[in-house]
Amino acid sequence: MTLSVVLAQKNWYVGDIEGNTARIIQLINNNQHHDLIVFSELAVCGYPPEDLLFRDDFRERCETQLAHIAQASQHCGVIIGHPTWQGEVIYNSLSFFYQGQCIARYHKQQLPNYDVFDEKRYFTAGRQRGIVNFKGYRLGLLICEDLWQTQPVEQLASEDIQMLITINASPYDYQKAQQRQQLIAKRAKQLHVPIIYVNQVGGQDELVFDGQSLVCGADGQVVCRLDAFNESLAEVNFDQHLKPLINAPLPTLPAPFDLAHIYQALVLAVKDYVTKNGFQGVVLGLSGGIDSALTLAIAVDALGKDKVQAVMMPFKYTADISIADAQQQATLLGVEFDIISIEPMFEAFMQQLSPLFIGSQPDTTEENLQARCRGVVLMALSNKRHRLVLTTGNKSEMSVGYATLYGDMAGGFDVLKDIPKTWVFELARYRNTRSYAIPERVITRPPSAELAPEQKDEDSLPPYPILDAILRGYIEEQLSVKALVSQGYDEPTVRKVIKLVDINEYKRRQSAIGPKITMCNFGKGRRYPITSGFGRKNWSL
Amino acid sequence: MTLSVVLAQKNWYVGDIEGNTARIIQLINNNQHHDLIVFSELAVCGYPPEDLLFRDDFRERCETQLAHIAQASQHCGVIIGHPTWQGEVIYNSLSFFYQGQCIARYHKQQLPNYDVFDEKRYFTAGRQRGIVNFKGYRLGLLICEDLWQTQPVEQLASEDIQMLITINASPYDYQKAQQRQQLIAKRAKQLHVPIIYVNQVGGQDELVFDGQSLVCGADGQVVCRLDAFNESLAEVNFDQHLKPLINAPLPTLPAPFDLAHIYQALVLAVKDYVTKNGFQGVVLGLSGGIDSALTLAIAVDALGKDKVQAVMMPFKYTADISIADAQQQATLLGVEFDIISIEPMFEAFMQQLSPLFIGSQPDTTEENLQARCRGVVLMALSNKRHRLVLTTGNKSEMSVGYATLYGDMAGGFDVLKDIPKTWVFELARYRNTRSYAIPERVITRPPSAELAPEQKDEDSLPPYPILDAILRGYIEEQLSVKALVSQGYDEPTVRKVIKLVDINEYKRRQSAIGPKITMCNFGKGRRYPITSGFGRKNWSL
Repeated sequence: MTLSVVLAQKNWYVGDIEGNTARIIQLINNNQHHDLIVFSELAVCGYPPEDLLFRDDFRERCETQLAHIAQASQHCGVIIGHPTWQGEVIYNSLSFFYQGQCIARYHKQQLPNYDVFDEKRYFTAGRQRGIVNFKGYRLGLLICEDLWQTQPVEQLASEDIQMLITINASPYDYQKAQQRQQLIAKRAKQLHVPIIYVNQVGGQDELVFDGQSLVCGADGQVVCRLDAFNESLAEVNFDQHLKPLINAPLPTLPAPFDLAHIYQALVLAVKDYVTKNGFQGVVLGLSGGIDSALTLAIAVDALGKDKVQAVMMPFKYTADISIADAQQQATLLGVEFDIISIEPMFEAFMQQLSPLFIGSQPDTTEENLQARCRGVVLMALSNKRHRLVLTTGNKSEMSVGYATLYGDMAGGFDVLKDIPKTWVFELARYRNTRSYAIPERVITRPPSAELAPEQKDEDSLPPYPILDAILRGYIEEQLSVKALVSQGYDEPTVRKVIKLVDINEYKRRQSAIGPKITMCNFGKGRRYPITSGFGRKNWSL
Repeated sequence: MTLSVVLAQKNWYVGDIEGNTARIIQLINNNQHHDLIVFSELAVCGYPPEDLLFRDDFRERCETQLAHIAQASQHCGVIIGHPTWQGEVIYNSLSFFYQGQCIARYHKQQLPNYDVFDEKRYFTAGRQRGIVNFKGYRLGLLICEDLWQTQPVEQLASEDIQMLITINASPYDYQKAQQRQQLIAKRAKQLHVPIIYVNQVGGQDELVFDGQSLVCGADGQVVCRLDAFNESLAEVNFDQHLKPLINAPLPTLPAPFDLAHIYQALVLAVKDYVTKNGFQGVVLGLSGGIDSALTLAIAVDALGKDKVQAVMMPFKYTADISIADAQQQATLLGVEFDIISIEPMFEAFMQQLSPLFIGSQPDTTEENLQARCRGVVLMALSNKRHRLVLTTGNKSEMSVGYATLYGDMAGGFDVLKDIPKTWVFELARYRNTRSYAIPERVITRPPSAELAPEQKDEDSLPPYPILDAILRGYIEEQLSVKALVSQGYDEPTVRKVIKLVDINEYKRRQSAIGPKITMCNFGKGRRYPITSGFGRKNWSL
């Protein structure tokens, strides 16, 4: 006797319960010759459904569709994630359907409520272990966070299970794949059983799911890993002792800092945001700088060149080489490229504002005005052609507020929002190793916002390697001034950077969402008050 | 023997730990002749501190200042709320200090994690009852949500307490005061003890705290209620049986729908957002319509006329009476008033965009362009004079997306964000009963965005009373299409409205924050995905 299992690593659409179910049933029907097909966490409704969970109509539609899935399980076992409503409470559940019956239902016990997760807002924690007897085997069942905590795992340790199956919606960050794999290996050895780990793929607002579902033997060796960032099905056979029967070479562990994966995550995030939200394509401002250059390359890789429009919007501070480089990149990538000078609009605003500006000196007002003229142009093109505006601000800029609200921040999706500037350079070089897409000079010239004569970013900011290191310490590691200074950073610089981060929360609150790539992104993962006296006053070390 | 207690209903500043502490110690010193002074929940750091709680430097500063507060308790008992860090966990705590010692510490047991609350993100629930023996009395102690749930109250029922003291940070909504008072009366009767209920006041981002601290006798009668929306201290003496000694007439219950309170909430929200964030004043676009008219009146009431600037930005669709009415209101309120035509900027944009608009018909692009020219003007004035732009969108508009991103939505604080249009009319009329501030014609003429010739809101939206009723059902009560239709609303209208709500989540996500007034505001209280298939497809009833 053997067991034949299909891992279904798919891209679900949050809220499209009927569409997801149609695809689930088709997959079940196509795989009826296997013993079992395993879908990911909350596959029926997509993850995370957020406050849709509180709606009666959402509940009704989920329950109706789940019944259809149960019906489809006549010949093949089906493991699937879905919400369960019971009286006043909601569970994050796993059902095991077979022969049209629910032979086991498990409710997630460990509900993540940190970082980007709000599961305790929605769900009540289950209290029962997940066990099912299927075709003579005793299988343990867990859902995502359960595997990361000790309690649900220890609960199964005494249950004499022969295999552990865990369904997941585990979002990507650049260190996650390694952590997951180490954890799974540890759990397999701890329980002395093979583990089937199924994760979803896809972009959902600020989250990207990388998949990388896998099968791990009882010895902790990964014997099969599904593609990162792509939908994939894998059929895995187990012998009568539930030892996985795979002759392929052992998959290698993902690299600790994998530029190709980060790039793929960004591409998938753009693709899914644009297509799931029904946009005809995207438009972006191409400045001749590296952020917009990288964003353009990602957009083309995500959507194809015909759905991408680049617009250069020069002003008197725009260098000739900026126009030339933007033009060259557009040609390299084959996208529509337009040049629209903002001078007439800028002059019209200044003329109309002049009575109110009497007696004042030029300051950032005039710089912001340039950026805002550009924002208005892009939004007009977006409106007219139903194309999403991609914004191009990187994480370093978003951190210190080096961006103009309603100007370069105008747009629906900020591709590089969680990418520090130093990574932007690395990703640009990486992209050029695949094909020459970003003119070399765009990568090598000193960054400038070109909002004032001879302006360079480093006139007002520390050099990016230092800035990014301080930001990483402050934002991702939540270090204090004291801790950062003790790492060797100059105290006035640290204080200046931190103050900029603190006082620019209001800008970030109105910024476009963008894909989470690091341990702590600006978005659901970081919830700071706008109104705060914490950073306003000096305090001693 | 008697007990003399001071209720300290104050406005704390989130994150300004040293500033709050200085005020706390001054209040203690000023009230040393009383037995006890009671401060509100998390008074030391302000509520809610959000992710600041995860910072080591925040912890160190809280712990340092809390020690100073303990020291100040030499002659008078002090009850105060603060976070407690213990190893890996954080509690939301109450300390009772007396004679420099902590004589009781209680950790909140019921952590709200619904609506605008995220307390399970931060805190671990306490498990011990809160009891202290003070001057021969046995007092029960609770923190906010504890009082609303049965478990912590039942825990005290068998403890033979003589009084219950509860510290709170209970945000305002227009129904909350009634609910709170009914609950407190019920608990007093349930436990047969008087209750001291201390709440904070103040605006903190999207939350407004109304105070209305009170003392309730064991019979459930409120004997003392502090002012709504104002800082206030009350001294209450209790006799040897802890019966409150008050000769004042019984306070009346707040009205179920109190326009004066709603108006005060908006005024306080604006005042605190502007002053706590250090702005020099505010600027707003005054269109001659009722939303900006009401917003202007609120701003003047919050900040005084000298800190408020109104700008009329006419275009060819602006009616003469709009300019006249805006001018009249500015004169009535005595604020700076400027007129800046957007025609030259609009024409410059259209001219520059014309090569890309060849072959296309005018559509909402041109309407949005007008709104965005206005947004850019206001932001330039904001930049130049360090004044916050107030936006004027009401809840009905925010719900259905009847607003332009980066246009009329440009700004830092949206005063009417949680006020349905039908309430806007009521609030305008209410404001005029205090003094004539809003020209009558602004209230009586049909609402129009004036972005196209002869445009009226009701050309594209259902009449506001119907729209607001549907929106209330869908957003606040989370009713389905089916439920709304069964209430008598026209199905195509319901579907149209709901679809507009669903597809405009992306706009709201980038909107300015605004004060929560209803049971469900757009902000932390409502977390819907942008990317969602839920409303995109038709489904049967």
